[in-house]
Amino acid sequence: MLFRITVAYDGTDFEGWQTQAREGTGGGARTVQGTIEDALARLSTGGRVAVAGAGRTDAGVHATGQVASFDLPREMSPGELARALNGLLPFDVRVVDAARAAEGFHARKSACSKLYRYVLDTGPVQLPTRRRLAAHVPCALDPGRVAEAAALFLGRQDFASLASAGGSARTTLRTVSRSEPRWDEATLVYDAEADGFLRKRVRSMVGALVEAGRGAVTVEELRGALAARDRRAWPAPAEARGLTLVAVRYPPPAGQG
Amino acid sequence: MLFRITVAYDGTDFEGWQTQAREGTGGGARTVQGTIEDALARLSTGGRVAVAGAGRTDAGVHATGQVASFDLPREMSPGELARALNGLLPFDVRVVDAARAAEGFHARKSACSKLYRYVLDTGPVQLPTRRRLAAHVPCALDPGRVAEAAALFLGRQDFASLASAGGSARTTLRTVSRSEPRWDEATLVYDAEADGFLRKRVRSMVGALVEAGRGAVTVEELRGALAARDRRAWPAPAEARGLTLVAVRYPPPAGQG
Repeated sequence: MLFRITVAYDGTDFEGWQTQAREGTGGGARTVQGTIEDALARLSTGGRVAVAGAGRTDAGVHATGQVASFDLPREMSPGELARALNGLLPFDVRVVDAARAAEGFHARKSACSKLYRYVLDTGPVQLPTRRRLAAHVPCALDPGRVAEAAALFLGRQDFASLASAGGSARTTLRTVSRSEPRWDEATLVYDAEADGFLRKRVRSMVGALVEAGRGAVTVEELRGALAARDRRAWPAPAEARGLTLVAVRYPPPAGQG
Repeated sequence: MLFRITVAYDGTDFEGWQTQAREGTGGGARTVQGTIEDALARLSTGGRVAVAGAGRTDAGVHATGQVASFDLPREMSPGELARALNGLLPFDVRVVDAARAAEGFHARKSACSKLYRYVLDTGPVQLPTRRRLAAHVPCALDPGRVAEAAALFLGRQDFASLASAGGSARTTLRTVSRSEPRWDEATLVYDAEADGFLRKRVRSMVGALVEAGRGAVTVEELRGALAARDRRAWPAPAEARGLTLVAVRYPPPAGQG
């Protein structure tokens, strides 16, 4: 029985979404995927269940609207499944919604876009109550330059200059449909939506907004670095803790709309 | 040299503000006051410095605008003091402001009011990213009854029915100048301001709002329990993690305004 669940987590104490076989470690990293698979193994009557996540969030990155899919060899209503999983999962991961998925649905492959939000405090001192969910750069950023830099990312482009060394994507062409910085006093809230994100790309985009905002690079220099497709020229990615996967969008089911 | 500092903390990993000598424990509890006094001892040239806090917040209660005062036997500018303290303090406590205080100033005794905010998620599942700073009651509350119950607390009254057994206040008469629930979707944000709060009183007020909101008590029953000054009749206090000390107000200095 194919299910689709919406998952929220505080990424602080996870080594990211994806379970990876790591040499010599015995695979002991605490990941969100592994944690959900452990819980499903206790519900399953047919052994371990593989879970696919829409966004393979890095260590320390949070989610309020991650989507995951899996095939559970057992009859259950979506409501029962959500309650049972929440009874088994630790409190830093919650299933906020569950539904039956149509045949062929895959949380990552079927997704048409993902929306990430980055929160950055720029005041001199960060409130401790914000520390887990917002990054901090104690530096006044120019909102005009931040907005100009954000506009560079819109549209269909080759993002090779922002790709992380560890990325495995075959192509670095992506379409960014939203790149919106807004301000709430000294806090920058930046929304980025695209048809797909290369590894650490949102954080590399934010790293560039910060460097532009504090005047360390010009928007023209960023435009040149983007065009050059050389990742050595690009500013360093911003901290993981400011980033949250907010939503994943799917095409409407065939026959609808 | 008398100083006044504004302090913010994530109360999750503290056993409250106040350092208490506890029998048989050797006083090993991690408190905000003790943590600040440890840092000041390293700056002081004359031994340990006693710190007075405006609100003696309980274990698990947070602050964004706690105020503390102390007499430091050393010359320092307020800016230097704030930077030095933030260099010594752990990341879950920050000094967000520092100033010289007028002679006779005492963070608690000089205060004319304190503003607390309580955040309560009422949806079926709480997002893990909100878990440290908002309480959770998975129960639809009636906004009209919550508002009616909140109005009971306004004005000068005897709050004996809400006083905690462990409280040491000589009088239970207090004036509540603000008691405002508002809603952000399924989240209740409740602001309470008074000239002083008995121990656990804000949480007892919120406990009553919840019981009224879900229909377990009527507003008339609460009014009767308040008038009866019998704390056994009052609903249980709400969880500590939803509560934050937001601001402490002082009279304008003599000669001003």
